[in-house]
Amino acid sequence: MSKYFQRGVSSKKEDVHEAIAELDKGLFLNSFCKILPDTISKSENHYLLMHADGTGTKSALAYVYWRETNDLSVWEGIAQDAIVMNTDDLLCVGAIDDFVVSSTIGRNKKKIPSQVIKSLIQGTESFLETLRGFGINIANSGGETADLGDLIRTIVVDSSIVGRIEKDKIINNANISDGDVIVGLASYGQATYENHYNSGIGCNGLTSARHDIFNEKVKRKYPESFDSDIPAELTYNGSYFLTDPIKEYNTDLGKFVLSPTRTYLPIVKSIFESIDRKKIHGIVHCTGGGQTKVLNFIDDLYIIKNNLFSTPKLFELIKSSSESSMKEMYQVFNMGHRLEFYTGLETAQQLIQISKSFSVDAKIIGRVEKRDSKGLEITTKEGTVYYS
Amino acid sequence: MSKYFQRGVSSKKEDVHEAIAELDKGLFLNSFCKILPDTISKSENHYLLMHADGTGTKSALAYVYWRETNDLSVWEGIAQDAIVMNTDDLLCVGAIDDFVVSSTIGRNKKKIPSQVIKSLIQGTESFLETLRGFGINIANSGGETADLGDLIRTIVVDSSIVGRIEKDKIINNANISDGDVIVGLASYGQATYENHYNSGIGCNGLTSARHDIFNEKVKRKYPESFDSDIPAELTYNGSYFLTDPIKEYNTDLGKFVLSPTRTYLPIVKSIFESIDRKKIHGIVHCTGGGQTKVLNFIDDLYIIKNNLFSTPKLFELIKSSSESSMKEMYQVFNMGHRLEFYTGLETAQQLIQISKSFSVDAKIIGRVEKRDSKGLEITTKEGTVYYS
Repeated sequence: MSKYFQRGVSSKKEDVHEAIAELDKGLFLNSFCKILPDTISKSENHYLLMHADGTGTKSALAYVYWRETNDLSVWEGIAQDAIVMNTDDLLCVGAIDDFVVSSTIGRNKKKIPSQVIKSLIQGTESFLETLRGFGINIANSGGETADLGDLIRTIVVDSSIVGRIEKDKIINNANISDGDVIVGLASYGQATYENHYNSGIGCNGLTSARHDIFNEKVKRKYPESFDSDIPAELTYNGSYFLTDPIKEYNTDLGKFVLSPTRTYLPIVKSIFESIDRKKIHGIVHCTGGGQTKVLNFIDDLYIIKNNLFSTPKLFELIKSSSESSMKEMYQVFNMGHRLEFYTGLETAQQLIQISKSFSVDAKIIGRVEKRDSKGLEITTKEGTVYYS
Repeated sequence: MSKYFQRGVSSKKEDVHEAIAELDKGLFLNSFCKILPDTISKSENHYLLMHADGTGTKSALAYVYWRETNDLSVWEGIAQDAIVMNTDDLLCVGAIDDFVVSSTIGRNKKKIPSQVIKSLIQGTESFLETLRGFGINIANSGGETADLGDLIRTIVVDSSIVGRIEKDKIINNANISDGDVIVGLASYGQATYENHYNSGIGCNGLTSARHDIFNEKVKRKYPESFDSDIPAELTYNGSYFLTDPIKEYNTDLGKFVLSPTRTYLPIVKSIFESIDRKKIHGIVHCTGGGQTKVLNFIDDLYIIKNNLFSTPKLFELIKSSSESSMKEMYQVFNMGHRLEFYTGLETAQQLIQISKSFSVDAKIIGRVEKRDSKGLEITTKEGTVYYS
């Protein structure tokens, strides 16, 4: 039985997919997000999008780090995480503007005082202001904070976003084609619009990362930060404490893992301003499922990822701490790029140039070939791994 | 220190209100929900609404009841609860149509299998179909199910709804006036569009109701259903078990408390079809804060509630089990009506007639008077209680 399973998480969420199998999939079968008719303003020229996501167990790490250091700023990062997990899914169908955000916070009031809620709200507003600075129209509708101690050990932070898009601007991953190259945009480093070096972790695999990196001192001090039903040898079984320094980036390990999820919105907006969208056949946000996520959107194509970014420091640390195989690592974590474009060679070069102008590294990481059934191979430094 | 506080809940959420004090309140200061400019379709004739809410700790009761009885249908009720907590807030500003719903479910995968998720999804669709049967345009955008065992003991069920409304159709509680009468629409009984007798509990005060009604057998069997940090004498300190019969209504106590939150949408739609909205000065959904909720929307008025419904059976049971004062009870629970209209006498009679045509009892429960500062008095069978 895998560690993921025993910890009660799954990168692929097979049983959820089974449960929602009969649910209407929206207007396009292989689009990254569900696309709806515009039943609100009833425009014949638009589609409607409504999306929900959250920070997962990253908030449990923010909790222990804040308790340990009194550094409230990590909650502003969590606010950003909750928004980006929505916006950067939505940009995969071409929606980059005309958004309204709503936040849902559930807390254990005995553990989470109002100053944390305040930081989350400030973080939300300040991140939305950053986006507005790039000309992105994104309103804040507020939301709900509920006291749910009988349900929640510490805090859960979720967001929903609604948006509208012109029909001819939709990007549908059904258009990913034989012969496409794949451009990856780095998840780590420091974008021109970021204030700190970003470890690249994003908001996925945090249950694994937390328990495999951090040590029993976290467990002893903050028993409210994990499920005591998980086998003891799988909880905080790592070697590090929250405040262990990462000298290279002038930070500590807790904050390094808490790097706010990078948004690619400013870059994608710039891309759409200078490149005809029709040349972009697909966009994948490498969240749950990591580098294998594209498999959700193809039927008879074979994806070859043979030129990925070198594994960034944090993922190396997680790999060695967790003793995971490369195959598992690429299935849970983005491992270096969190956004990938499927397009022709010429457009690829333009995308790379635009991304680099924001100091976000980018390169062709692979290509698409025609096959009878779908598949994926990833060249890792420990050999090639296969998925289907 | 009050029991509510020790249990980590608060009917008024003072510290949340403090935390969000600086957040933009929307276009209208005293409207029941935040009203936004229509920044999505950019119509000059419309406002936009986006709302988030959830079932609170009612899901913890659904969990223990389902575990005890294997009755999955309680999850369909929870799905309805999550939607109605949004729709029936939105109808208070006049929005009764052109909605899109999104669901966010957070679960402990070790406790909540996919069949529960399936029931929640089925319940969502089947309740939306009921609303559509009344001509209400409400789409389902799907949502997110996250595995969050390190954060969530059992399951959290939230929804968000977005909607749009013509500017001249807005109902703003700022218009509540001296001389208005208050019409209450019963929360209990069986509406023409309900399949079972409804206890009227709705989705508020469930932390209190659960612990004060149910006994230590629930605590012993399902320790995952509450926060063990709450003082032991305040957890499941009641006298009843989940399956104790309520013969009068041919059900048991667990299911009686789990009565799905009644929606008033069909009734309000019918009201708006036959009554000029301008005659309705305000609508209050008596959720958190119970019968005192109106105090959030007035400045220099005095509310007299001197003809409330007799306390329904379940609230009587909660009162005697919890040894709460009448003052507390009316502050936490709706105590008989969950929706109230502020209007003139003639319109009041029409509202009552329409409500009764759906087998939902209704009557004038009080009136509004001019004062220098705001206040509220409620006539209870144990004397008059005062709030400010």
